[in-house]
Amino acid sequence: MATPDITLYTWPTPNGLKISIVLEELGLPYKVRPVNLESREQKERWFLKFNPNGRLPAITDGNTRVFESGAIMLYLTGRYDTARKISYAPEDLPGYTEQLSWLMWQMGGLGPMQGQAHHFQGFAPVRSDWGIQRYTDEAKRLYSVLEARLQEVPYLAGEKFSIADIACYCWVRVSPNIIAFNLGDWPAVQRWHDRIMEREAVKTALRVPEAPITEAQFTIIVAQKRKEMMERNNADLH
Amino acid sequence: MATPDITLYTWPTPNGLKISIVLEELGLPYKVRPVNLESREQKERWFLKFNPNGRLPAITDGNTRVFESGAIMLYLTGRYDTARKISYAPEDLPGYTEQLSWLMWQMGGLGPMQGQAHHFQGFAPVRSDWGIQRYTDEAKRLYSVLEARLQEVPYLAGEKFSIADIACYCWVRVSPNIIAFNLGDWPAVQRWHDRIMEREAVKTALRVPEAPITEAQFTIIVAQKRKEMMERNNADLH
Repeated sequence: MATPDITLYTWPTPNGLKISIVLEELGLPYKVRPVNLESREQKERWFLKFNPNGRLPAITDGNTRVFESGAIMLYLTGRYDTARKISYAPEDLPGYTEQLSWLMWQMGGLGPMQGQAHHFQGFAPVRSDWGIQRYTDEAKRLYSVLEARLQEVPYLAGEKFSIADIACYCWVRVSPNIIAFNLGDWPAVQRWHDRIMEREAVKTALRVPEAPITEAQFTIIVAQKRKEMMERNNADLH
Repeated sequence: MATPDITLYTWPTPNGLKISIVLEELGLPYKVRPVNLESREQKERWFLKFNPNGRLPAITDGNTRVFESGAIMLYLTGRYDTARKISYAPEDLPGYTEQLSWLMWQMGGLGPMQGQAHHFQGFAPVRSDWGIQRYTDEAKRLYSVLEARLQEVPYLAGEKFSIADIACYCWVRVSPNIIAFNLGDWPAVQRWHDRIMEREAVKTALRVPEAPITEAQFTIIVAQKRKEMMERNNADLH
């Protein structure tokens, strides 16, 4: 196995958490460099060398940079998960293709669309009924796709917990607080979520980077923002 | 090399085109099954077996299904691009990690965000100034990230044309018609686009599946929808 020399650039976000979980599951040594989203540190010139898109997370491994959480997960497991603890090898079908498909489904669908629901439900500068409806409905549709899959198999790629589960879990876990989803509406998703939550690596990863704000504090702030948005009068809408 | 037994389920869309280009570049044999988006054939039960998310494209290769365009591109090149014509091998750094990062950047950023700009500029049931501004601005920011990269290197992963370029090209090429972008605003993107457009495989792929409507006809329809949206009075906004 190649010798890892990994630095993780991150902040407590769903996409950042994915990488901490992968690193903890694989027991890899890594350094953490928090990049403060509040002060827009991710747009500073030094960081754009690691991710020209100015977003988190990113990693360096020696002289190699990798950005976009899905790319980092594929890179880390391809290079270091030689025991195939949380990933499938290319020759292991259909696990490998299911893992790839569901990982991309999270990167191109669940993440961006739930992210827009976060925005329109709590953070947009103006209230947009169409924005709220479009993205909340789409996120619910995506959760129903997840539900159907998890009624068939214990994990997204099949029998084994994999990076596809990690990617989706990190978004599903925040939905009750940020967009008021009730996971009980999707019982197989709820059971899958509760199993993943109990993994030691997940518990450890949740403390990376050391929280500048506790999750409980964050939840209160988000709930308040969401309440204000939902109470805004339609009269001032665009 | 494994023997391919590929069926491509597709329709003339940016994501569908990615796969036709990969298949044509690699000279692989494949069957095409058009799936009619106008009649919502992609939501029919027979197709959900191949993509439980009910979206295009998807492929089958023998008994294996793959869905999400980014997953299909990684699968096809991993399995069949043994000559590394349009992809980098995992040990070939930094080409491999750049390819992965930019491919994911397209899947999670350029595609979804430009797609929302398409929606708010031309297809939303109500006009939303905030929706138009948010996604048009974000798409422009993403094009400027592409521009900066392509001022450094001829192709996104480095010296070689790869699946990262194919993924981004398929979205960039439609932006002048659908969201009125002027590629001349990003000169390196324009030059890269014009080089890719001249590839024989790209020209052939553009005829897959046989068009139910010509691109010229589609352009006229889109331009009309966009004009109507932009002219709508702010008074009826949500």
